[in-house]
Amino acid sequence: MQKVTTIPYSIQWNESHITILNQQELPLKTEFLELHTLEDVFDSIVTLKVRGAPAIGITAAFGVALAANALEDEFFPSFAAKVKEAITYLASSRPTAVNLFWALNRMESALSGSTTVNEAKTDLVHEALKIYLEDEETCRQIGEYGLSLFKPGSRVMTICNAGGIATARYGTALAPFHLSIEKNIHLKVFACETRPVLQGSRLTAWELMEAGVDVTLITDSMAAHTIRTKGVNAIIVGADRIAANGDTANKIGTFGLAVLAKHFGIPFYVAAPSSTFDLTLDSGDHIPIEERNAEEITHVGGIRVAPEDVAVFNPAFDVTPNELITAIITEKGIIYPDYKENIGKYIAH
Amino acid sequence: MQKVTTIPYSIQWNESHITILNQQELPLKTEFLELHTLEDVFDSIVTLKVRGAPAIGITAAFGVALAANALEDEFFPSFAAKVKEAITYLASSRPTAVNLFWALNRMESALSGSTTVNEAKTDLVHEALKIYLEDEETCRQIGEYGLSLFKPGSRVMTICNAGGIATARYGTALAPFHLSIEKNIHLKVFACETRPVLQGSRLTAWELMEAGVDVTLITDSMAAHTIRTKGVNAIIVGADRIAANGDTANKIGTFGLAVLAKHFGIPFYVAAPSSTFDLTLDSGDHIPIEERNAEEITHVGGIRVAPEDVAVFNPAFDVTPNELITAIITEKGIIYPDYKENIGKYIAH
Repeated sequence: MQKVTTIPYSIQWNESHITILNQQELPLKTEFLELHTLEDVFDSIVTLKVRGAPAIGITAAFGVALAANALEDEFFPSFAAKVKEAITYLASSRPTAVNLFWALNRMESALSGSTTVNEAKTDLVHEALKIYLEDEETCRQIGEYGLSLFKPGSRVMTICNAGGIATARYGTALAPFHLSIEKNIHLKVFACETRPVLQGSRLTAWELMEAGVDVTLITDSMAAHTIRTKGVNAIIVGADRIAANGDTANKIGTFGLAVLAKHFGIPFYVAAPSSTFDLTLDSGDHIPIEERNAEEITHVGGIRVAPEDVAVFNPAFDVTPNELITAIITEKGIIYPDYKENIGKYIAH
Repeated sequence: MQKVTTIPYSIQWNESHITILNQQELPLKTEFLELHTLEDVFDSIVTLKVRGAPAIGITAAFGVALAANALEDEFFPSFAAKVKEAITYLASSRPTAVNLFWALNRMESALSGSTTVNEAKTDLVHEALKIYLEDEETCRQIGEYGLSLFKPGSRVMTICNAGGIATARYGTALAPFHLSIEKNIHLKVFACETRPVLQGSRLTAWELMEAGVDVTLITDSMAAHTIRTKGVNAIIVGADRIAANGDTANKIGTFGLAVLAKHFGIPFYVAAPSSTFDLTLDSGDHIPIEERNAEEITHVGGIRVAPEDVAVFNPAFDVTPNELITAIITEKGIIYPDYKENIGKYIAH
């Protein structure tokens, strides 16, 4: 029996509830959870069952719609006050997630535009669905542009999980691979495991296997040897923040891959929606790099693998300088250097 | 109370037994085991309680001396036959370990040079001690030459464990750090954890902390960001095999570090005894790269971290091309390019 392969959806709206993929259980268990209440939604975000900035924003937006539908008020002002309470509550779930606030602001605007309870309930569901569908369309566009850069049979390396399960669908850096399946174009993917948190082995390998993409897992330390001996043609990564000059913050390990791409003379692509650009920053020097706790390195799966009290340096991101980036793939088009000049042509201030 | 710091010894000869550091238990437990019988010695090698090519050779040599001392034969030919049996037995413990055969050959030659049981017993102990002390002297010389390349306060990165516990003492790539403590010169070491087997976190971080060296642990993926943001001045690594043109096979991840060193304009040093050179090989293209089983990547500490049946590429070593190597530090001196010309001046064919 052939296995049915498909792009995994991480969020689905079912009117009476939201169905989410429990990313905390991957890859050991593919578990879908039904979120029936506002508290369920809050909990799924706090406990990282939903992860990925776009996916968090979408889930929260559906959470507002869910909470609104459950209200029995027929008096609009008290209904609206309770919906706003729900929005404030969800905003407190992940204090640093920009997409979360952006999505909740949109829901609040939709609420403000309504005048009756029934109208508001309908508008809120529509706005959440719109956020969802816009994200899917953005990712699909990134995938189309990205796929245009690869030849059939290309061997492409990636790191972390800039995948469909972090967005409505398709993902960013992984979108070209998902589209390649739809279009029956064979690409071979090498996924770096992405220490310390192993998003590559836990999420990317799982997601691409589910979708039927030809994926091979390596440790981050194997990238140079794999590029040389397996004839890797390109590297593609996602982004957490992109400065006005193209400098790109992404998962730790990205910068090293960009240096390897230059050494081997292969292209290095960043794939990200236009919302990732932060044009208030002249360069990547101003991007703060979060340092996370030592246990991510000293322990794996709860088991200690390093000496007690060892000094650890654990930056979660690094910044790839613009001169190492061949192109930045957005839903609005492919941006090439000179980035200082060209980013402004695609991305609004 | 100040902690007493010292270079950990992994092998000690105590006449009636051999004391070894159980490297399988590191870093969770610092356990020393007494080997009293030939079977104990065989078992310690097979189960990887002793690791590192020089350390295996030395342990086996002491094992022969131990076995000889335990024999009650007074008739030399039957005594010699039994010692040879012990040698054959130990040679079967790790079939691919070149140092093991080399050390056992030396023990067999020592036996051949003796004419009485008592003389042989003394000669075998002496020969094993000589192998041990020669290795210590070789490592110390490598350390002296290596240390001459670093300024006080230098920040140096390394990978894997080319350490004292893999040799009689001092190690190869780690020897300069151990000598820096003796000479009261401060160096700051960044140890890459070395996926998949984590020799960096399990062994190098432990060994350097025990010796009082200032060591910070990072994942392999953090090397580029660490070199840039922490001002790393040099990289030093060990070697498994060096071809006649200087191409160097070492633990997977080494090649990527060499590319980073070139990108950042910092020196990349290989530290290895002259026995590591294989002048029968023109270049690194002829060095076979062992591929190990997928579980090393898909599981950590027995826990699965990747999807079932995921395709894995798991090369244990990579080959760093000679043009990325600033110098090769041996016990006979520091070899600089042109390697094709200069290696022959230091290393006998």
